[in-house]
Amino acid sequence: MDAHSNQLNGAESLVETLLGAGIDTCFANPGTSEMHLVGALDRYSQMRCVLGLFEGVVTGAADGYARMTGRPAASLLHLGPGLANGIANLHNARKAGTPMLSIVGDHATYHRQYDAPLTSDIEGLAKPVSHWLRTSTNATHLGGDVAAAVVASKIGGGAVATLIVPADVAWSSGGQPAVAAAPSATVTVDEVALAQAAAMLRQDGAALFIGGPGLLEPGLTAAGRIAEETGCRLIGPTSAARARGGAGAVGVERVPYVIDRALEALCEVRHAVFCGMAEPVAFFAYPGKPSLVLPPEAEKFTLVASACDVATFLDALADYLGASKAPSKALHLGRGARQLGRGSMTLEGLGTSISALLPDDAILVDESISASFKLLPALRHTAPHDHLQLTGGSIGMGLPLAAGAAIAAPYRKTVCLQADGSAMYTLQALWTQARERANVVTVLLANGSYATLHHEFANVGFGVPGPNAIAMIDLDKPDLDWVRLGEGMGVSTTKVDNLETFNAAFAAALREDGPTLIVVTPSEP
Amino acid sequence: MDAHSNQLNGAESLVETLLGAGIDTCFANPGTSEMHLVGALDRYSQMRCVLGLFEGVVTGAADGYARMTGRPAASLLHLGPGLANGIANLHNARKAGTPMLSIVGDHATYHRQYDAPLTSDIEGLAKPVSHWLRTSTNATHLGGDVAAAVVASKIGGGAVATLIVPADVAWSSGGQPAVAAAPSATVTVDEVALAQAAAMLRQDGAALFIGGPGLLEPGLTAAGRIAEETGCRLIGPTSAARARGGAGAVGVERVPYVIDRALEALCEVRHAVFCGMAEPVAFFAYPGKPSLVLPPEAEKFTLVASACDVATFLDALADYLGASKAPSKALHLGRGARQLGRGSMTLEGLGTSISALLPDDAILVDESISASFKLLPALRHTAPHDHLQLTGGSIGMGLPLAAGAAIAAPYRKTVCLQADGSAMYTLQALWTQARERANVVTVLLANGSYATLHHEFANVGFGVPGPNAIAMIDLDKPDLDWVRLGEGMGVSTTKVDNLETFNAAFAAALREDGPTLIVVTPSEP
Repeated sequence: MDAHSNQLNGAESLVETLLGAGIDTCFANPGTSEMHLVGALDRYSQMRCVLGLFEGVVTGAADGYARMTGRPAASLLHLGPGLANGIANLHNARKAGTPMLSIVGDHATYHRQYDAPLTSDIEGLAKPVSHWLRTSTNATHLGGDVAAAVVASKIGGGAVATLIVPADVAWSSGGQPAVAAAPSATVTVDEVALAQAAAMLRQDGAALFIGGPGLLEPGLTAAGRIAEETGCRLIGPTSAARARGGAGAVGVERVPYVIDRALEALCEVRHAVFCGMAEPVAFFAYPGKPSLVLPPEAEKFTLVASACDVATFLDALADYLGASKAPSKALHLGRGARQLGRGSMTLEGLGTSISALLPDDAILVDESISASFKLLPALRHTAPHDHLQLTGGSIGMGLPLAAGAAIAAPYRKTVCLQADGSAMYTLQALWTQARERANVVTVLLANGSYATLHHEFANVGFGVPGPNAIAMIDLDKPDLDWVRLGEGMGVSTTKVDNLETFNAAFAAALREDGPTLIVVTPSEP
Repeated sequence: MDAHSNQLNGAESLVETLLGAGIDTCFANPGTSEMHLVGALDRYSQMRCVLGLFEGVVTGAADGYARMTGRPAASLLHLGPGLANGIANLHNARKAGTPMLSIVGDHATYHRQYDAPLTSDIEGLAKPVSHWLRTSTNATHLGGDVAAAVVASKIGGGAVATLIVPADVAWSSGGQPAVAAAPSATVTVDEVALAQAAAMLRQDGAALFIGGPGLLEPGLTAAGRIAEETGCRLIGPTSAARARGGAGAVGVERVPYVIDRALEALCEVRHAVFCGMAEPVAFFAYPGKPSLVLPPEAEKFTLVASACDVATFLDALADYLGASKAPSKALHLGRGARQLGRGSMTLEGLGTSISALLPDDAILVDESISASFKLLPALRHTAPHDHLQLTGGSIGMGLPLAAGAAIAAPYRKTVCLQADGSAMYTLQALWTQARERANVVTVLLANGSYATLHHEFANVGFGVPGPNAIAMIDLDKPDLDWVRLGEGMGVSTTKVDNLETFNAAFAAALREDGPTLIVVTPSEP
């Protein structure tokens, strides 16, 4: 389409503004109030529209897409309830620092006063998960509102921008596409701050806590130079939005999820410098245990809070320290022996097999939850990859995130390590994977329970759960048949019973185009 | 358990307060922050805990349960994201006027300041869907907070009460169970208002708009008396939370969903009296069409706004009018000929078959969406039943609502008329139906599209949808295989291709205990 802007309606100016800003992918689940937006999207073939059959799929996929491209996709959501269904994965995206741009339809401005069935307080719902929030009020301003939302979505490296578009703003004429200003790239590194960080990191018990793009190149290399020069530890968050991992990446410890393990791991830290990561805190509170997991006496200093500038600061700090230009090989993770796991389906064995078979430059989407404790160690020494984790703790991220990541990077393989309880939250994402022929191999870890809750129930001293607790913790009775669920969504699915059959199925799946689901039942809880 | 209250922790006082108020069913999806609530629920075997594998199932089932019992179930939700996942069906419950009591766990009070991964503004998320909202601040007050929430959930016949319970409030000792005050039952009927309503209803072009319990007995009988005495029309909302229907019920017209049909149906109304129902408005706004569907010149008067008092007001109005004690037979719906549909799977034929086979006193849960236009007419003359509809327009209500309704009324048959697009939102409810052996027969109408959006796309003049519009409207490529999806959730599922096989499958399903899913593909869009 090559319409003149004076002929555009609001919806068309919205789409032209998005395309002008390089946003050409829209994850969507629209309804009647968004019909003029659907009509406008239909007029621009440059825009790729991807349907999710539930809004948690839409927002989760947009998160995955943006983590891999560094730029937002658009999400199109239907009124307050459509937004509400997407909030859990917006929460995860918000905690990930992902650039997100949600367009939420609303009733026509004059219709809202009548409290129609689908009327709700959309701004009220959006506020808790949005860094930036605006309701557009007329078609002529809509292009400018979209441009402002695009800019807002990139603040601090990535933010959640929500733009509410009433139906009449979309359908009225007078749309004016606008240009989204490029974010300012000037980063000022304060020498006093560098001196402070450098002095701390040269002490005994020093740790550099790194988050955001500090866990990607070139941040990791800079961090390695700093560690080599100072002897400090490098520590990342329990879960990161995206981290480079596997052979060749500078090794970074992670704050353990389990509170007692975290306290143990960090008890010797005396000097903590934060770079794109906040002070680590316990995931949950427990009676008699602290919220902060660093020793209270540790000295703490934040070099940079905002995620986007991390690599610049790390580089400047390495230079300030006079570190060598590249860290020595010892600081890089090595490739493990490419051995396949054998025999019964232990989590360690499974990790060993995946580690051996993972192709170079895979995207590893990880919602393995309780299985991660035993799965991930082997995956430290696998092929180079990007590791995408659950940043906000809101389960139901894995399958949608994998769909979005694979759509963003179609020529890479996306491997999704997915627990069953969390998979059930957004299993509709399998259908989107099938429709989009997304190159995702999902390893579905079907232990038939919220295993984390079993641990936690025991942790707080309740002993053996009784019938009511079991009713809320176990997912059996009936067992979920994941082969049928996967096939029902159009994804080629196999169930394997031991590591030999897993190895064959996983290797075959990696050779396939389009999505595959491999169901495994670990031989241990 | 028979603990003395001075030994209780907050969580135990919560459970004892619920049980004391007659709330003995808890739909739940808890997490770590609710572990002491899980522990407490585990100690009281009188409480029935029902797990939903997604929170939209939890809140939808609680809605269905309360619509059938008239009293709230408890819902247990995990932090902000768990609440967010339940909001769409809370929205529907709010618009239904259902008594709802959501208990949402939060981090310990002292932990919230640290912005742990799962920290969010729970009050902010809850506010738009809650009539009543409180965050409990200490264990000793928790019992009283629960009692206040129970009372609040019954205000106006049914309201959404949300109580946020921080983990330390649950785990601290000093819990004191409290007694929920019975709501005051005094209804004052104003004679001046009765005179006004009576005078209006005796005019030509008079209509009595009835909602809430006015659509159940004894409200319907009173409405029938009024209609017989005055000649007024009886009109209900497009979608009602619960309405008595089928043979023997006083017939009530409904405001049509499609705007043009609604304008047509109501164009002759000159005097409108509202009784537990607000003035009807268009479901959506459309360019050039009005929001209000009654003629602007119609005289309007609200006799009673609150849903709970409708029957009392209708009775008083009938008496005031000097109406006969019972409406004549002509005003009651009759039983249609018990003919079975035959041949290809038309929606009319399907409606005819269901109408013929529906058992007495069934619960008809209806999320048939676009299919309803052709399905429901035949069902006006079926066996006596309760008809439960989608009140808030937020799709994904049917399967959870049916689960909750069947749990509330295990000796009745629940028949769920369910469109496929909306079923996909909360298909996890099938598993809860299977686990609870809920007596639900679901007729899954698999047309493979958001058919409503096809209509709407054409309605707004966009003609034939192009590739992007089709990508957001059709659910095919790949087709969802509902037989596998149903079986994967543990529900006995069959697919039928014509009305003869449907008739046999539906009759068989009605004889079964536990849930059944029958997949039909209508022969028309």
